[in-house]
Amino acid sequence: MSTIGPEIERLIQLLAKLPGLGPRSARRAVLELLKKRDVLMEPLALAMQEAAAAIKTCEICGNLDTATPCSLCCDPRRDSKVICVVEDVADLWALERAGVFRGRYHVLGGALSALDGITPERLNVASLIARVREGVEEIILAMNATVEGQTTAHYLLDTLEETGVKVTRLAHGVPVGGELDYLDEGTLSAAFKARRAL
Amino acid sequence: MSTIGPEIERLIQLLAKLPGLGPRSARRAVLELLKKRDVLMEPLALAMQEAAAAIKTCEICGNLDTATPCSLCCDPRRDSKVICVVEDVADLWALERAGVFRGRYHVLGGALSALDGITPERLNVASLIARVREGVEEIILAMNATVEGQTTAHYLLDTLEETGVKVTRLAHGVPVGGELDYLDEGTLSAAFKARRAL
Repeated sequence: MSTIGPEIERLIQLLAKLPGLGPRSARRAVLELLKKRDVLMEPLALAMQEAAAAIKTCEICGNLDTATPCSLCCDPRRDSKVICVVEDVADLWALERAGVFRGRYHVLGGALSALDGITPERLNVASLIARVREGVEEIILAMNATVEGQTTAHYLLDTLEETGVKVTRLAHGVPVGGELDYLDEGTLSAAFKARRAL
Repeated sequence: MSTIGPEIERLIQLLAKLPGLGPRSARRAVLELLKKRDVLMEPLALAMQEAAAAIKTCEICGNLDTATPCSLCCDPRRDSKVICVVEDVADLWALERAGVFRGRYHVLGGALSALDGITPERLNVASLIARVREGVEEIILAMNATVEGQTTAHYLLDTLEETGVKVTRLAHGVPVGGELDYLDEGTLSAAFKARRAL
């Protein structure tokens, strides 16, 4: 389109590549940025450049941090005998927000998917095995409850078997605050089978 | 949260201020940016800085462009006797995408809203009157079909009356591709009243 200059057009195209933003919301975002140049656009550009330069991938667990090994791997208060394996850094963040886990993490960098061509070699599996061999007591598989996530969990269970480490996975069941009426049969069935005595 | 470093946290907070992005999608966006540093994050930061420095508000119509007056106001092929008044630059872009209008624009910078404290003085009304007095034949009011938009249109109609200029507004009716069953009564009523002989 000729009306929008190349500078704005390029900004829209780049913003539209972000997850959750399509061409339409990218246009709205650009207008908001141009209206709030001093308080939003320039600080955001600066924050991106700083983050791009400062953030590294942790050589041990795959977390994103300004240092490698990351602050979680270096924290002596965290139990190094328990490793929670997640697909992505976003899952690590989610578990940290829940504040439920005080061990170490291992970020696979995705889940097995024949459709997307994600083979075991493309995930951080070898480094996980190496960490297990250094003396780990429990591996918690915290994959997504999707086909890809569960396939990955099964693959890891098989691969880890020879190390003899104890492998657990997150429980399936009714989400807290969830209504039975709105749950799928798979979840209900899992919750029923895993019922606990009171 | 302690796990996410201050650089990433700041980036998430700034991105979450964009329309269409909440805290959750801002986190996803930041991970995507960090994964695609070279092809997305750094080009986006650069594009923002360039746009922040280059883009100006047109002194005549309020459009955003690298020059003022903007390319639309300077285009001799566009009819300077007809001005289409819009609330926002996004509306100007939408009309240009439709490619239906070959005159000039005037961006009000919002719509009258008692709730948000948007009074006539805060909109670019005085500059519109001044342009009309320089010799304009038709003013097309292209406000949104919302309460605020229609209030603004009525206000402009009153204000423009003394100039004697011809004032028109966009037609209301059934959107192209729209199904009657899904339309509100206001739209159906407007479409019915404005029915045309075939």
